[in-house]
Amino acid sequence: MSELHWKTAVTEVKPNKISLRGYPVDKLLGKVSFAQAIYLVLKGELPSPEVGKLIDAIFVSSVDHGASPPSVLAARTVASTGAELNSAVAAGVQAISRYHGGAIEEGMKLFLKIAQRVEETKKREEEVIDEILREMKERKQRASGFGHRLHTQDPRTKKLFALAEELGLAGKYVHTARGVEKAMEKQLGKALPINVDGAIAALLCELEIPPEIGNAFFIIARVPGLVAHVHEERSRMKPMRKIHPQDYEYDGPQEREIK
Amino acid sequence: MSELHWKTAVTEVKPNKISLRGYPVDKLLGKVSFAQAIYLVLKGELPSPEVGKLIDAIFVSSVDHGASPPSVLAARTVASTGAELNSAVAAGVQAISRYHGGAIEEGMKLFLKIAQRVEETKKREEEVIDEILREMKERKQRASGFGHRLHTQDPRTKKLFALAEELGLAGKYVHTARGVEKAMEKQLGKALPINVDGAIAALLCELEIPPEIGNAFFIIARVPGLVAHVHEERSRMKPMRKIHPQDYEYDGPQEREIK
Amino acid sequence: MSELHWKTAVTEVKPNKISLRGYPVDKLLGKVSFAQAIYLVLKGELPSPEVGKLIDAIFVSSVDHGASPPSVLAARTVASTGAELNSAVAAGVQAISRYHGGAIEEGMKLFLKIAQRVEETKKREEEVIDEILREMKERKQRASGFGHRLHTQDPRTKKLFALAEELGLAGKYVHTARGVEKAMEKQLGKALPINVDGAIAALLCELEIPPEIGNAFFIIARVPGLVAHVHEERSRMKPMRKIHPQDYEYDGPQEREIK
Amino acid sequence: MSELHWKTAVTEVKPNKISLRGYPVDKLLGKVSFAQAIYLVLKGELPSPEVGKLIDAIFVSSVDHGASPPSVLAARTVASTGAELNSAVAAGVQAISRYHGGAIEEGMKLFLKIAQRVEETKKREEEVIDEILREMKERKQRASGFGHRLHTQDPRTKKLFALAEELGLAGKYVHTARGVEKAMEKQLGKALPINVDGAIAALLCELEIPPEIGNAFFIIARVPGLVAHVHEERSRMKPMRKIHPQDYEYDGPQEREIK
Repeated sequence: MSELHWKTAVTEVKPNKISLRGYPVDKLLGKVSFAQAIYLVLKGELPSPEVGKLIDAIFVSSVDHGASPPSVLAARTVASTGAELNSAVAAGVQAISRYHGGAIEEGMKLFLKIAQRVEETKKREEEVIDEILREMKERKQRASGFGHRLHTQDPRTKKLFALAEELGLAGKYVHTARGVEKAMEKQLGKALPINVDGAIAALLCELEIPPEIGNAFFIIARVPGLVAHVHEERSRMKPMRKIHPQDYEYDGPQEREIK
Repeated sequence: MSELHWKTAVTEVKPNKISLRGYPVDKLLGKVSFAQAIYLVLKGELPSPEVGKLIDAIFVSSVDHGASPPSVLAARTVASTGAELNSAVAAGVQAISRYHGGAIEEGMKLFLKIAQRVEETKKREEEVIDEILREMKERKQRASGFGHRLHTQDPRTKKLFALAEELGLAGKYVHTARGVEKAMEKQLGKALPINVDGAIAALLCELEIPPEIGNAFFIIARVPGLVAHVHEERSRMKPMRKIHPQDYEYDGPQEREIK
Repeated sequence: MSELHWKTAVTEVKPNKISLRGYPVDKLLGKVSFAQAIYLVLKGELPSPEVGKLIDAIFVSSVDHGASPPSVLAARTVASTGAELNSAVAAGVQAISRYHGGAIEEGMKLFLKIAQRVEETKKREEEVIDEILREMKERKQRASGFGHRLHTQDPRTKKLFALAEELGLAGKYVHTARGVEKAMEKQLGKALPINVDGAIAALLCELEIPPEIGNAFFIIARVPGLVAHVHEERSRMKPMRKIHPQDYEYDGPQEREIK
Repeated sequence: MSELHWKTAVTEVKPNKISLRGYPVDKLLGKVSFAQAIYLVLKGELPSPEVGKLIDAIFVSSVDHGASPPSVLAARTVASTGAELNSAVAAGVQAISRYHGGAIEEGMKLFLKIAQRVEETKKREEEVIDEILREMKERKQRASGFGHRLHTQDPRTKKLFALAEELGLAGKYVHTARGVEKAMEKQLGKALPINVDGAIAALLCELEIPPEIGNAFFIIARVPGLVAHVHEERSRMKPMRKIHPQDYEYDGPQEREIK
């Protein structure tokens, strides 16, 4: 044991035995889904079946959003130079930062702040929301997780909230998120509906995920999408092409139903 | 439409509609697991329920392997300088390369090469394996996906193969992998059992995944583990500490059973 | 011209003509040093010969500092997995963040804040420094750019300041840096001498470099060192070795003099 | 001394003493240029004054080439998401790979191969070049370092070779590069002049730099350009803008002369 000896609580590795947060990984195989294992490794506990389903849905909702997000463009640009797949995917992850994916962490912090102030001041939530939005406006800040450049009714938000409802997991933070949506509409005179980041922020608050890893949920969800784009770039496109950030069309399978 | 116009077959995004490989994402939510959605985005088709289960297990098997893999050390080292979570995770991904995770792609190429030569020469597989291993030895190459520094009986391998068997998905490539294992033992005079990378390589061959994205399965599986380590580094450790690559102990929950 | 048309003031490229900030690059070749060209591209103007010399010295001072900084360990760790040189160097750059290299930007902001308050309040600099250090102490902050884990008399600081003096470039910010050093000694009861980051911070303030790119000077200086370490790792070490962060010795050329 | 003890020949760090390849860094300050220090750290020896000048010129030649190279686009894309400067620059470095910057290493290997075969076979260089180009054609390879999308007469090539001539450093590899240029013109029926990568490849061969770090010279040269672009993106552009890879104009200083 050297003076640099340190401790970790993630995974124990011994000869022929690997345990994630105390659970032997071979016991988890076939028993829990990947999403449940992710929850375990991040939160330290296995989720209930309901939470497991919601976590699966959160990840599915953010797997990909086409080729124009900066993470995809950064990853494709690096891939087009002949770089290794892992390095191209890494560049995509580097682009998941404050303005891209960052709304989850910001949204979580807002919802937690509202809850805390309601707790401390015993004021009505509606009042606290108005107060905090006014304070933000004075600092020229805007609530993160509301409004979308393209989607007026984000199909992912609606479905995520419906599923949370169904699973009995839509609690006070979903209520808060809707309260903020309503207050913003009143304040701005136009609807700025909860977007997928805002919905995930509310749901991760319900699951007591720390906001510091809020964006990590987006990173984990999006890495497979980045891999798909990098693989397409490497296998279908010419190296060193100029990648237009908007002028592309989808030529994959037409809309189809799950059988 | 500019002269830079291009095409992508991954995801179609229209106002209020996002479709992954043709499936509207809101229809997938609650219906398919994250692992199934990953398979869809990478392969272009939804998996059967059996394949879905196997994919979930493959990802679960590789979520984390303690703090000593270079991907974890690179990610923690970057995190310890106060870098953003995404940049630290990206550095971890950059370390998933030829010698770390790379065995999946190499293993897949080996198994596919064996299958192809059996097909072309009509020789018995056993003979082809001996031939190819001899050729590799002459080029001073060693088969990837066999043997492990620490595990003589990798618990993940055994369970993954048992599960594939159970799901009816252990076909000719699992047979090939076992053939290589046997031939190597004969050639080397000591057992060098299939490790988790070799097992995943065989199973991804069964699922007709292209070898070029073999390592991507490892990257996708391990990113959550990297997040857990980076989060622990940021929340529990002092910045700029000297990170010993081996001298650490696990102090998380003791071994426990899934309820 | 599309609606995405944008402007840049860095470099103009036309057939057979490349101009950096207005200077044809072929006219610069053989006339200006690399360091002077860096100053040009970052600042927009060519430096005077004196400034050119100081910039060269600033970069030389930070080319390398052995194998234990986290940037080197991150780069070597990634390199040891068989990753490409550029990806390993990039991981090193990702580790040049808040606590590693970050002192230049922080130091610059401190010195500029002191200068600004002296300007605004017409108080004596000594008084302003005491005031600001007290304010920082209350917020549990410490001045960046002072003290070193290893060097009590950083040889680089002394020489950089002597050179700046000689070149007539040691002006008010060098004076401020020394004032902070003196005030900290009084406040803490022990010497915490200006380190190389603090010295560079003061000198970059003299040169009117914006603090937002202060750390970039460290990144630019250190990339060659990272390349040297990555190349050594790839050519001299075994892949996947466990890299001890401290327990190494130097076995290069013995101390020698410039002829 | 632990069992992980290792050795490095780059830099020796002791209290109050830092020596690069044996030279105390404070003795180097003010005496050698940044480019000379880079040469020292990469090659292990200080360059002669002539070599020092050539190295400075090589770096100056590649500091920047406008906003359309993929390294710049990757770096700007990451920067536009609010990522830290170092992470954005790192993404740019990740894009300096096989097809972007990679021509230096490839060119060096070609020139060294020609020299070696001349040495071994005692054939005339012209003959060897023809032979090797034919072999490459059969493998559908093209010589790297010749031709440019935009420049028919790359101003950097001409000036670099003239400078090398003047400094007495244009030896057999420059001759070889010109031989390849001539042979390719004959073979292809059109001129494909040596580009800046090819010229640098020839000159680095003259300086006995190992080809494995050929591209590192491009990385080192270009990092300052990447910093300039990232800083411009952060200070002048809106976050999350769509970055067109071509449709931009230069609005910096008009052409001017070095005074």
